[in-house]
Amino acid sequence: MRIGVLTSGGDCPGLNAVIRAVVRRCAADQVEVIGFHDAWRGVLERSWEMLTVDRCRGILPRGGTIIGTSRVSAAREPGGIDAARAVQAELGLDGFMVIGGDGSLAGALAMHEAGVATLGVPKTIDNDLAVTEMTFGFDTAVQIATDAIDRLHSTAEAHDRVMVVEVMGRHHGHIAARAGLAGGAAIVLLPEDPFDIDEVAATLTARHATGKWASIVVVAEGAVPRDNTVELPDRGTDRFGHQRMGGVGQVVADGLTERTGFETRLTVLGYVQRGGTPTSFDRVLATRYGVAAAQAAIDGGWGDMVALSADHITRVPMAGNVGRSRPVDGDLLATLRYFAAG
Amino acid sequence: MRIGVLTSGGDCPGLNAVIRAVVRRCAADQVEVIGFHDAWRGVLERSWEMLTVDRCRGILPRGGTIIGTSRVSAAREPGGIDAARAVQAELGLDGFMVIGGDGSLAGALAMHEAGVATLGVPKTIDNDLAVTEMTFGFDTAVQIATDAIDRLHSTAEAHDRVMVVEVMGRHHGHIAARAGLAGGAAIVLLPEDPFDIDEVAATLTARHATGKWASIVVVAEGAVPRDNTVELPDRGTDRFGHQRMGGVGQVVADGLTERTGFETRLTVLGYVQRGGTPTSFDRVLATRYGVAAAQAAIDGGWGDMVALSADHITRVPMAGNVGRSRPVDGDLLATLRYFAAG
Amino acid sequence: MRIGVLTSGGDCPGLNAVIRAVVRRCAADQVEVIGFHDAWRGVLERSWEMLTVDRCRGILPRGGTIIGTSRVSAAREPGGIDAARAVQAELGLDGFMVIGGDGSLAGALAMHEAGVATLGVPKTIDNDLAVTEMTFGFDTAVQIATDAIDRLHSTAEAHDRVMVVEVMGRHHGHIAARAGLAGGAAIVLLPEDPFDIDEVAATLTARHATGKWASIVVVAEGAVPRDNTVELPDRGTDRFGHQRMGGVGQVVADGLTERTGFETRLTVLGYVQRGGTPTSFDRVLATRYGVAAAQAAIDGGWGDMVALSADHITRVPMAGNVGRSRPVDGDLLATLRYFAAG
Amino acid sequence: MRIGVLTSGGDCPGLNAVIRAVVRRCAADQVEVIGFHDAWRGVLERSWEMLTVDRCRGILPRGGTIIGTSRVSAAREPGGIDAARAVQAELGLDGFMVIGGDGSLAGALAMHEAGVATLGVPKTIDNDLAVTEMTFGFDTAVQIATDAIDRLHSTAEAHDRVMVVEVMGRHHGHIAARAGLAGGAAIVLLPEDPFDIDEVAATLTARHATGKWASIVVVAEGAVPRDNTVELPDRGTDRFGHQRMGGVGQVVADGLTERTGFETRLTVLGYVQRGGTPTSFDRVLATRYGVAAAQAAIDGGWGDMVALSADHITRVPMAGNVGRSRPVDGDLLATLRYFAAG
Repeated sequence: MRIGVLTSGGDCPGLNAVIRAVVRRCAADQVEVIGFHDAWRGVLERSWEMLTVDRCRGILPRGGTIIGTSRVSAAREPGGIDAARAVQAELGLDGFMVIGGDGSLAGALAMHEAGVATLGVPKTIDNDLAVTEMTFGFDTAVQIATDAIDRLHSTAEAHDRVMVVEVMGRHHGHIAARAGLAGGAAIVLLPEDPFDIDEVAATLTARHATGKWASIVVVAEGAVPRDNTVELPDRGTDRFGHQRMGGVGQVVADGLTERTGFETRLTVLGYVQRGGTPTSFDRVLATRYGVAAAQAAIDGGWGDMVALSADHITRVPMAGNVGRSRPVDGDLLATLRYFAAG
Repeated sequence: MRIGVLTSGGDCPGLNAVIRAVVRRCAADQVEVIGFHDAWRGVLERSWEMLTVDRCRGILPRGGTIIGTSRVSAAREPGGIDAARAVQAELGLDGFMVIGGDGSLAGALAMHEAGVATLGVPKTIDNDLAVTEMTFGFDTAVQIATDAIDRLHSTAEAHDRVMVVEVMGRHHGHIAARAGLAGGAAIVLLPEDPFDIDEVAATLTARHATGKWASIVVVAEGAVPRDNTVELPDRGTDRFGHQRMGGVGQVVADGLTERTGFETRLTVLGYVQRGGTPTSFDRVLATRYGVAAAQAAIDGGWGDMVALSADHITRVPMAGNVGRSRPVDGDLLATLRYFAAG
Repeated sequence: MRIGVLTSGGDCPGLNAVIRAVVRRCAADQVEVIGFHDAWRGVLERSWEMLTVDRCRGILPRGGTIIGTSRVSAAREPGGIDAARAVQAELGLDGFMVIGGDGSLAGALAMHEAGVATLGVPKTIDNDLAVTEMTFGFDTAVQIATDAIDRLHSTAEAHDRVMVVEVMGRHHGHIAARAGLAGGAAIVLLPEDPFDIDEVAATLTARHATGKWASIVVVAEGAVPRDNTVELPDRGTDRFGHQRMGGVGQVVADGLTERTGFETRLTVLGYVQRGGTPTSFDRVLATRYGVAAAQAAIDGGWGDMVALSADHITRVPMAGNVGRSRPVDGDLLATLRYFAAG
Repeated sequence: MRIGVLTSGGDCPGLNAVIRAVVRRCAADQVEVIGFHDAWRGVLERSWEMLTVDRCRGILPRGGTIIGTSRVSAAREPGGIDAARAVQAELGLDGFMVIGGDGSLAGALAMHEAGVATLGVPKTIDNDLAVTEMTFGFDTAVQIATDAIDRLHSTAEAHDRVMVVEVMGRHHGHIAARAGLAGGAAIVLLPEDPFDIDEVAATLTARHATGKWASIVVVAEGAVPRDNTVELPDRGTDRFGHQRMGGVGQVVADGLTERTGFETRLTVLGYVQRGGTPTSFDRVLATRYGVAAAQAAIDGGWGDMVALSADHITRVPMAGNVGRSRPVDGDLLATLRYFAAG
């Protein structure tokens, strides 16, 4: 038996841990694993390598992915599905395991429905897939953002400043919510709860009046103002047609300076959040996903994906589960409010 | 309304985060919080302080507990329950919130059943309570152990050595299992799966024969040999009558040296695992527990405890839930085996 | 005997360690220490506190400064020197210890020459004072930047990208040079060596041609283009008349994208570099400075400052030593070139 | 031109950074570098590899050494010098660069004096070589020990305990002194200043009497009691005839428990201190050493070694400089005393 593996979409701490776990689990049953380079591009351009236990030695703690990644989708490329089918036949693959985000899994599902067997491992730094309680990489991103906020506190206090921190989170604010809670932010702005810059300024001003105005404001990159009280810059769309993010942190920082008169400084964490060694939590989660996904392949569970549910790894069909996102829930939003200002 | 709070048992990263969250949640409803010093000793010896929002400023990232801890149990002390009742009456407390491990929660339940209202927040670095999926402090301990293992890998490789690491885990091997997976250990020995030192030596020897013998062996302090193949030192009992732990790491290191001839080195992580700043995961979990426990107090849910279930904080009765432990499950044990040796 | 202490200018990891060491050394000789709030503002506005050993407990690992900081200068304020003299007389201070950067030390020297005894402890995150081999806070900033670069490597490799990192360093590139070396940057741009964006692009293109184009480019915020090959944004001046920094990272990222066609991403580390717990190196250096500065005060060495020379703390006059800056030396620039591209 | 490189003795963070820097500097002058495996064993057993820029990619942040290490000494092996000479001739090596501790450098000097050209790069985690202000790996070890002490503080405070931490330092207490200062230890015991356990106990008891007895006691593994007030265990000698270390931490912990009645806990950091990724400081220092050592080889400076002096890398003869150790100086010992107890 032989399977293909590919990593697709943005990189994410834990990808190598998944790959290693797939290879180790497969090795126990003499299943061969072929890794395709740069996601489906490696299939379309016939670039791959054999992934052995030796090849995967030492990669567990490393960020990135040893087989590269891209946003190329065989399902969307003209002739892509046939090309994949041909590679599958030629290499004698039972199917392709796709480690990717919601878009990549939608592509994997489309391939599967077109007769090219696939299997999904969910991946998003943003942790906003409804199908699973937790995605790997997310814990690492939250930890990195929290470490940065810890550091910003001392500058905020030394200078009586407002520090605005823009973190990742295009559609949902899971990173902002968790890092804000963990970092002791006074204010957390996130897509699930559109903000009113005047209200935020008033909260900080009230906080200042009681002498506690060294404040951290965490802003998800996808945070949006309520009723257009401030305007976000239009940064156009990228080559995939997605609205370009960025700039809301600056808008918030400028809006607060203007309304409160406090010294306000902006930090945009950016790519630092998604690189480097995964936390132990993410390494374990990624490893468990990898073992379970390999098991699924061995069991012939093509068309399925793995997920975390109540601390157990489960297997569910991609159909019906891909494409459903998960916002920050009301409980967590309510919790955040108890720590606002004060 | 006014409640008492105490932290009981071994210290654990996240205790301060719970305290702060309780105080913040209570403040929103004008509920006063009194912190008792060194667990029930503060009740018995009448040592306490008012915990205000200001008092709790800056404690979120700090290890330890600002109100101190001890193993003193009012339920076990002669006259302890009456003394607690008197303090409760005198201070006008609706009840006592006990942040503690299984023993402490059993005490809290006994108090509650004797008419002194209590509420539980589960706490154990070992993560072995059946009632909750995760306890705070555990993630931090696993991360610290994993960081240490990451460091030991390079020495193991530079010198072709076997590095044995003894981690916490008296009754169950959750820390060993997770840190072993996250750290890429060749072997993990834990109480749930008694070890045969000859088998372990044979595995390492086989691994050596293929040229890969820079090996990490993670040993839970409560790991036990199968069929008494090796003997653990008898370290007597502590003043609470518990069998003293420690020494199994040395026994394993010596046993492997003797049987394999490989250079073997022991590291005992000890107290480093339970101190210092909590991971962001633990800060968030502790904060959510604290908010939910304060809510329970406000709702009059005395006799209950909070727990984590499928990423939600739930509230369950202490009765029937305290005293049930949770071993490392079979799935995780099976997963560990795929990474043994190789 | 009694002395005043103040921290002046931008915050810097290690300020609290200096304060604590001054207080501990003074306590051994029964010298009292008064801390003025927010630098000279605390003198002018009569805001201070007694700094005891107890007050300084636990501050060693903390970033920021417990007595606050500002850029207020008594030497520059009209009537400032007389006001300081009056406070000195009223409190019976032998003199003021000023922990500050070059501008703050110039102010301290002016005060001293005007008859208000002062003593200097050099402080700059940028490590560009000629009088001392190393300033505290610098090692921490380099470590934080290096950690970030370590993380960016994995994204760079996973996506075959160029990652541009803008670090602090307004006038000199010590942080960029050290973090670039420590982080394995392909290119380091710094004020000491004006860059030609076409050359940088050519180097990256050549690197790409050999298949190694996941590249890190470290840019000091004060890096300048040679012969105006690209234009930096004019960000005006701040309220102290200093040219506002920022933007060169974006200019470099845009210039490289345009000239090479590679995907280029920018990270601006900003204030994260100067906050949070100091490295052990900075804690030791700051502690040694503090002990030596207190000793200088006890010895009556007013007008002096402390410095690091060949791993020893020395004492030199402020006069003649303040105001001399130290660029990155030629050896280190040469060393950087061996790691460029390749 | 072609040179050989080997790493000898205990591993040390920064070895790979030296190797990489040697290779990069040599590559710029088309000098070939051959790496011998496991120190002189690779010469004697003819095991080596070509070290190219590509081979050294990605090793900068890694602990350990890619070419392995051992304590095998060609100078001490019968026929070892002739064997090395034969390999040198056969491979056409200008000489051997030895990256090693004082013993290894003594061996290198002996080889050189016997006509086999060598060049030294000093290496010891203990930082006790008189010839250089700082050795790489030391800063990393101090940082790791400091991180551990930071964590132990919270347990010490939560439980009112004395935490004893045994750190490396067989002959000199540089790690203990620096980590003790950086970690805020109450007491530091080191070889340079034999301790009296009764005095230490009295200091802690006095500290306790003022209410501040959550104390950290740092003990260098080579600390010795004064006048045999307590007895250290005799652990015999290792196969090189060195007295085996270890046990003094336990002796101190037991001695303090007995004399003070305080709860005392021991942590032995062990090998964790010398593994894993180097700090940015050590990466830069190791890189500068490597570049300078390669330059020395290119210049024909055989018989020399590199050293750090006043933040510059210098080149000095091995003869007369090898074999001189450097104790913790009096200033630092005096500084430590200001932080004792209190």
